[in-house]
Amino acid sequence: MHRHFEEELTRLKEKILKMGALVETQIAASIKALVERDGPLAKQTIQNDHLVNAMDVEIDEECIRLLALYQPAARDLRFITTAMKITTDLERMSDLAEDICERSIELAEEPLLKPYIDIPRMADAAQKMVREALDAFVNKDAKLARKVCSEDQFIDELTHQIFRELLSFMVEDPTTITRAVRVSFIAKYIERIGDHATNIAEMVVYLVEGKIIRHTKV
Amino acid sequence: MHRHFEEELTRLKEKILKMGALVETQIAASIKALVERDGPLAKQTIQNDHLVNAMDVEIDEECIRLLALYQPAARDLRFITTAMKITTDLERMSDLAEDICERSIELAEEPLLKPYIDIPRMADAAQKMVREALDAFVNKDAKLARKVCSEDQFIDELTHQIFRELLSFMVEDPTTITRAVRVSFIAKYIERIGDHATNIAEMVVYLVEGKIIRHTKV
Repeated sequence: MHRHFEEELTRLKEKILKMGALVETQIAASIKALVERDGPLAKQTIQNDHLVNAMDVEIDEECIRLLALYQPAARDLRFITTAMKITTDLERMSDLAEDICERSIELAEEPLLKPYIDIPRMADAAQKMVREALDAFVNKDAKLARKVCSEDQFIDELTHQIFRELLSFMVEDPTTITRAVRVSFIAKYIERIGDHATNIAEMVVYLVEGKIIRHTKV
Repeated sequence: MHRHFEEELTRLKEKILKMGALVETQIAASIKALVERDGPLAKQTIQNDHLVNAMDVEIDEECIRLLALYQPAARDLRFITTAMKITTDLERMSDLAEDICERSIELAEEPLLKPYIDIPRMADAAQKMVREALDAFVNKDAKLARKVCSEDQFIDELTHQIFRELLSFMVEDPTTITRAVRVSFIAKYIERIGDHATNIAEMVVYLVEGKIIRHTKV
């Protein structure tokens, strides 16, 4: 039975990585829809969110089944309960990609405010954080998890830079305000994707080292 | 042992309600600091966030202990894993109260944009949702949980109303833009507190009925 449990854990890890890859795809698609002003892609991406929700439920049920069937002890028990929390963070990242799509649909119907340069950079950084946080989890790699936490600062700084730039647009030309507010929301959504990745990384550090390192943003 | 486990579960429920009450206090204090332009209260509230974090860790450890010690079956198992997810949502609501405090500190140092009317109403509604969602959880009351989900719409509508009003301020007088953006962020934070309460309520419905009702916002 022990061997079987190990195999089940391996499959669980694979599923979590697969869900992470799907969430990355959702984020990438939402940014592509924004940059290329592609309304149909944004709508398609919103529809695909249900795939992420389905994986969340599937992994959750899988975790419950493993807990009930194998009644794992301390370390494996913590791994599984952490997995259940991580999928919640992943699912909410996908919701944020959906929010990006909604703003992108609105922006695609309005004149272009400016070409997007920093926002795709932010989104790339956020996707990398998601990938690394999940790698850190499945490999119980606290060092990589700490790296993820430190990367969050780059995203936060870019957010502030974007806000300042948008503010100058709004002050100079009030007709840009509605669009600038939409873009600032998109920056905020990406910042929150980074925060969710950081939350995962913090859980990994706690899982591996038993130490609580907690940043204060959602 | 069964009886002992029941007592432990009761204590767990009490702790979750206590954590919920603490989070409500944090939200109320953050709004009081905003409305009364009380920087020191905002700072004190930010400091008190660690109390919520401590309860999150305590309840999490408690849940792990119950799972390891009693190896509960299906229904109780799900109750405990749901409790672990709920405390994460509560902890993040408290982080949002902290975000409200940060914006309040900035706003208290700037001229008053306008008296706050809708924001305290939104915050009251959000606090009520938190309270009801937790009551629904500890009493396994799916009907109350569904009521919480429907209340979220009121908050979403108020958010849109506030955005429209702030937009008119910004368009009429660009010197208000910075402050109006801060206030719009506060509205967004409260909206997200409502979303977290809705997430909890959705988990309760799933716990009680096995049905997935999921809204799409974080």
